[in-house]
Amino acid sequence: MTPFSDRLLAAVEAVGNPTVLGLDPKPEYVPASIRERSAKAFADPAAATAAAVLEFNRRLLDAVSGIVAVVKPQYAYYEALGPDGARCLADTIRHAQSLGMLVIADAKRGDIGPTAEAYARAILGETPLADGSVRAFQAADAVTVNPYLGIDGVQPFLDACDRLGKGVFVLVRTSNPSAVQFQDLTLEDGRPLYEAVARRVAEWGAPRVSACGYSSVGAVVGATWPQQARTLRALLPHAVVLVPGYGAQGATADDAAANFDAQGRGAVVNASRSLMCAYALKRHEGSLTAEDFESAARDEAERMRRDLVQAIERKKSDA
Amino acid sequence: MTPFSDRLLAAVEAVGNPTVLGLDPKPEYVPASIRERSAKAFADPAAATAAAVLEFNRRLLDAVSGIVAVVKPQYAYYEALGPDGARCLADTIRHAQSLGMLVIADAKRGDIGPTAEAYARAILGETPLADGSVRAFQAADAVTVNPYLGIDGVQPFLDACDRLGKGVFVLVRTSNPSAVQFQDLTLEDGRPLYEAVARRVAEWGAPRVSACGYSSVGAVVGATWPQQARTLRALLPHAVVLVPGYGAQGATADDAAANFDAQGRGAVVNASRSLMCAYALKRHEGSLTAEDFESAARDEAERMRRDLVQAIERKKSDA
Repeated sequence: MTPFSDRLLAAVEAVGNPTVLGLDPKPEYVPASIRERSAKAFADPAAATAAAVLEFNRRLLDAVSGIVAVVKPQYAYYEALGPDGARCLADTIRHAQSLGMLVIADAKRGDIGPTAEAYARAILGETPLADGSVRAFQAADAVTVNPYLGIDGVQPFLDACDRLGKGVFVLVRTSNPSAVQFQDLTLEDGRPLYEAVARRVAEWGAPRVSACGYSSVGAVVGATWPQQARTLRALLPHAVVLVPGYGAQGATADDAAANFDAQGRGAVVNASRSLMCAYALKRHEGSLTAEDFESAARDEAERMRRDLVQAIERKKSDA
Repeated sequence: MTPFSDRLLAAVEAVGNPTVLGLDPKPEYVPASIRERSAKAFADPAAATAAAVLEFNRRLLDAVSGIVAVVKPQYAYYEALGPDGARCLADTIRHAQSLGMLVIADAKRGDIGPTAEAYARAILGETPLADGSVRAFQAADAVTVNPYLGIDGVQPFLDACDRLGKGVFVLVRTSNPSAVQFQDLTLEDGRPLYEAVARRVAEWGAPRVSACGYSSVGAVVGATWPQQARTLRALLPHAVVLVPGYGAQGATADDAAANFDAQGRGAVVNASRSLMCAYALKRHEGSLTAEDFESAARDEAERMRRDLVQAIERKKSDA
């Protein structure tokens, strides 16, 4: 069983691209032609919506396959669609994995011990059923978790890492504006709360460092704050950093590059709307419609690869 | 549209019982007779498990109806069962509401703005579909949320409170042992992090105080820490406190009573395993089996009512 960190770094290296495709499919992102076909095929609007989202996801995954190695479905958008959404999520994960992509479940779960265990089993693929059998509805490769409850809420996910070769990304410093309200509060030792979280993440990850030099316990660090990214990179030398905020949220490739190590490894950079809706980017204005979402996403994924690789090279030569 | 806080306090007063039935149905909690019947009716073990859990939930809700007014499904156990679990959750919520009970969705969600909005809409009952229609798969009355991302992750839930008459319970101080790791860290002003969270919860709740004197923005405060409960009660005079940890987690009725105001109002107390598996309590040992879960749960709910009411009275006479 290959540890998640080894699988992740190898997958990123194989495509030469640290970009993660975020799949946060609001129904309005789906081109009209797909929505109309689904509406004809399914009388129930929920089933039609889930089918439309699934076709959109599959075609998007096919389009960026070989250019992007990691995909991050945002659980909220699937849960919103009820039972059909749960099926759409499972099918999306399976399709990505059939293309050789790794799947990070963006669920941001955090709960007390037994409940965290139920979430870990549900998301990472070993749900116990009433007859004693075990089912993998969604067998994601890794999952995002919230640290507020401490190790009790994280341990069951760490156990799943060890048992199943999976990974965990703990929220350390998020990219949203109000992250400052609690994460940046100064503790009595003069350091911000997110550094205390980072120290714990380093502790939880230490026994889980694999051959590649990185741990299967990673950290979410918002690229909108490059100075913090540099500090956290130093506090977390063995944590793969999952960087949100690139593209639509406003962070540049140079901001994101602050999360990479001196060899240009150890981070992955999420882009959701800027890939899903690449057809709507200003640089294509006037020439593309939603129906061009596949070629636009492929072009944009290639542009992101160049953009990030160049920024990482600049950072290496600055160091 | 009656605000959630008014609805909640009226519902609790009508049964004279602040107990919340936590529905965290591990498959092994379900009596063998129900599991066997479901296994015969459904070839798919996942469908059989979800059907067994739904029958267990329904019968448990029927058994405590009129004694308990509030129910709190723990989302992890339903998500674990895939599409069938999503349906089981929705049917459980509907059944509770058909009995006049209020439903607090224990989902502990926390995410950035647009995603938090998707979660709020999903859980509180207004999912937008591809054809422009809106669906309520689960229309819970309130939901638990995690504060780590700050107001960005909470605002969409507050908007749903205002728009739909719903409620929110923000995690302030949880009942699990490792809550100390971050929630109890001392800030530079000498106060613990959970007090900073409590001050924000008071601020978010202030514009949402209804006729009963309480806000639709409540707080989760673990009863395993009664001294903290008293401090937080004072910091949060208008927040309904959702108290986990009573019963199986070890807190006593007197511990829980610290969360009530001088009139004996303003808190609800969760009991999950001690009601779901009341048949297994030592006080019934030798006399009951899992097949007696309904009468055992009803008796235990009545005992909890007496236990909590007496503890609240003791607290009132001490004050």
